[in-house]
Amino acid sequence: MDNILVLHGNILFSKNSKELSIHKDSYLVSINGLIDAIYNEIPPHLKDYVYKDYGDRIIIPGMTDLHIHAPQYAFQGIGMDLELLDWLNTYTFPEESKYSSLTYAQKAYTNFVERLRKSTTTRACIFATIHEDSTLLLMDMLEKSNLSTLVGKVNMDRNSPDSLREESASIAFSNTEKFILNVLDKNYKNTKAILTPRFIPSCSDELMTKLQSLKDKYDLCVQSHLSENPSEIAWVQELCPWSSFYGDAYDKFNMFGRNTKTIMAHCVYSPSIEIERMKENGVFIAHCPESNINLSSGIAPIRTFLDKDMHIGLGSDVAAGTTLNLFKAIAYAIQASKIRWRLQDSSLNPLTVAEGFYLATKGGGEFFGKVGSFEQGYESDILVLDDTRINHSELQDLEKRLERMIYLADEREVFAKYVKGTQLF
Amino acid sequence: MDNILVLHGNILFSKNSKELSIHKDSYLVSINGLIDAIYNEIPPHLKDYVYKDYGDRIIIPGMTDLHIHAPQYAFQGIGMDLELLDWLNTYTFPEESKYSSLTYAQKAYTNFVERLRKSTTTRACIFATIHEDSTLLLMDMLEKSNLSTLVGKVNMDRNSPDSLREESASIAFSNTEKFILNVLDKNYKNTKAILTPRFIPSCSDELMTKLQSLKDKYDLCVQSHLSENPSEIAWVQELCPWSSFYGDAYDKFNMFGRNTKTIMAHCVYSPSIEIERMKENGVFIAHCPESNINLSSGIAPIRTFLDKDMHIGLGSDVAAGTTLNLFKAIAYAIQASKIRWRLQDSSLNPLTVAEGFYLATKGGGEFFGKVGSFEQGYESDILVLDDTRINHSELQDLEKRLERMIYLADEREVFAKYVKGTQLF
Repeated sequence: MDNILVLHGNILFSKNSKELSIHKDSYLVSINGLIDAIYNEIPPHLKDYVYKDYGDRIIIPGMTDLHIHAPQYAFQGIGMDLELLDWLNTYTFPEESKYSSLTYAQKAYTNFVERLRKSTTTRACIFATIHEDSTLLLMDMLEKSNLSTLVGKVNMDRNSPDSLREESASIAFSNTEKFILNVLDKNYKNTKAILTPRFIPSCSDELMTKLQSLKDKYDLCVQSHLSENPSEIAWVQELCPWSSFYGDAYDKFNMFGRNTKTIMAHCVYSPSIEIERMKENGVFIAHCPESNINLSSGIAPIRTFLDKDMHIGLGSDVAAGTTLNLFKAIAYAIQASKIRWRLQDSSLNPLTVAEGFYLATKGGGEFFGKVGSFEQGYESDILVLDDTRINHSELQDLEKRLERMIYLADEREVFAKYVKGTQLF
Repeated sequence: MDNILVLHGNILFSKNSKELSIHKDSYLVSINGLIDAIYNEIPPHLKDYVYKDYGDRIIIPGMTDLHIHAPQYAFQGIGMDLELLDWLNTYTFPEESKYSSLTYAQKAYTNFVERLRKSTTTRACIFATIHEDSTLLLMDMLEKSNLSTLVGKVNMDRNSPDSLREESASIAFSNTEKFILNVLDKNYKNTKAILTPRFIPSCSDELMTKLQSLKDKYDLCVQSHLSENPSEIAWVQELCPWSSFYGDAYDKFNMFGRNTKTIMAHCVYSPSIEIERMKENGVFIAHCPESNINLSSGIAPIRTFLDKDMHIGLGSDVAAGTTLNLFKAIAYAIQASKIRWRLQDSSLNPLTVAEGFYLATKGGGEFFGKVGSFEQGYESDILVLDDTRINHSELQDLEKRLERMIYLADEREVFAKYVKGTQLF
């Protein structure tokens, strides 16, 4: 028998980045975990199904966090006074080292997963640490949460402290393969491994070569960092003098799109040649505006990426970003684009509300397939939002209510949540 | 008999902008509404007083919001797609017009005051609207809340819609005097009137002349807007060709510091000559970073103001800012300073956590006198913060716990609040 879900409320979603589709007082129908249609009234063939009446609440697609570091959640909001490379050495690497302890990981990841479960996020691409056991523990918890995630055991074999470095490329390779096999063995429904070389400065050419073979053998997606900070970019040029540009250092190992589904976080300083390569290769960009501000990195030219119809979504980038809340990521994306327009390049217009919303839903969701929209056939990731706490009683306009939520809402407004048609709460 | 208050907890405050004073596990003593001292242990002469034990919670001075528009609270988080002048005409003026209705004002201001009461704010300088009755209503509510505030009936007699313009300078004058007399008559303890010409574009020279006489007659403070947006500044130059610069147009009417306590909001584009005049005249600057980003105005050179030892505090500037939460204003101030450093002027270093905290407490508090610190003789504005929700159990360092609150805390973390020694909750 079909698993049919009928939800009543005010429905908003994006078909494209330019405009919102708005269905006031309507019925969203999901069949077997996929969106079927939106109706003004319950159609005769569904009249026997008891629908869930969410009244005047707002129903939107689940959001995708394209870039987040689970082990950094425990220190979010601390140590925001340094730029990227110093920040990594001073705060991040020591914290991530702690995840060699399963006891520590158990405690910290429990908190992380519980908060993520309650947030607006339904899909996430997650960096763990180099530690296989604690990464598997994290994946067990994520699977239990019913969120849909891609999780990477991080690889790093150079330029990292002893406590957070894989001993050699060979050991990294064998541990990572063991990890992948363990994950396959678990047979998770909603949790998958993603290949995660931290970034070029942490990964030797030898390691990258070996990871490429793993990627091909197990048909993995890839996530990493790109062109976030000027010092980082200069360093990559020193480390890989054979590369034409930073992204080219990934592309040499076929970890930069083409037949490999790839997310690159940041892309603040990508030169035209890098942008063109990303476009050509279909690389997904995880735009992390709050992180890029907190680490004084700069602001990515998101308007350029949108104009070129590239694949873009948003990343919270916790802990360089301070919140899991993707509404806030939308707000920061809009705010960052305004300041960039004013201070850096007035030819690139600021993002609109519709564009910001699109990035957090369909834009990032596309990395997972048909995700992040309510068009027919999309997976039924659904958020029901109750804006009573922040609403103004005279405010009727649904687009304005959505805009207000972007600036003011947090997990308190998430009233109900579905991933692939399964209700989490 | 003396009114003695002894609070136990972890105490943090600023004596200056450079460093935090930190007293772990200590006792804050207030006598008759003024800070007496901080002790490591309860001294013998106070041993008979039952102290309030806030345990491991954090105790900081109350925060001052130097710039907020009460009537705009109802539409915070909406209409963020325009620059200042279009934003005023499209969203703000129509909304403020509604406050001619006492019924509307009653409803909207009740919500505003209740939210402000629960926030981290203990002192605020507030713009109301041109309407005397609803402004008095607001002041009644604020007085009842026990917050300490300065509230302005706004003056505007030109370049405003009919529904939000005083008919003539003379009528504005007589209505404003009537308003001031009414306020005096109310004999409020914590609520005072502040002269509030909206900004030069809304106020004719004739009105400004008349307001000056009111200011002198009733010895009022002044609040207004300054150098927020390039189009606004050009307009002021057209309207007041006799002024040397924007601030000079206030100074001509003696509403720019000297013997008149004055707050000017924004100062994003103040030329050197204006900065020098503000410094010379002791004008307070209300730095409103989120507002300046949301309206694509730009970023004020806050480092310059700090280096010159000028008077500076923070403003939420609701509704161009989207939150009353001054922790967020600190975060935005730090973030804005980083982006300004990166994109505009690398000679001006970003703000530190200590500096941001100082601005929200002692920096802005100084407009009210000895307010915003726990030095002896300061008025006892006190916040007790419970960071259980956002804390990480291994985090002991108090400065880090404060930093985390700057980025993550909201009204949920305000556990207890005192203004001038009176407990609000």
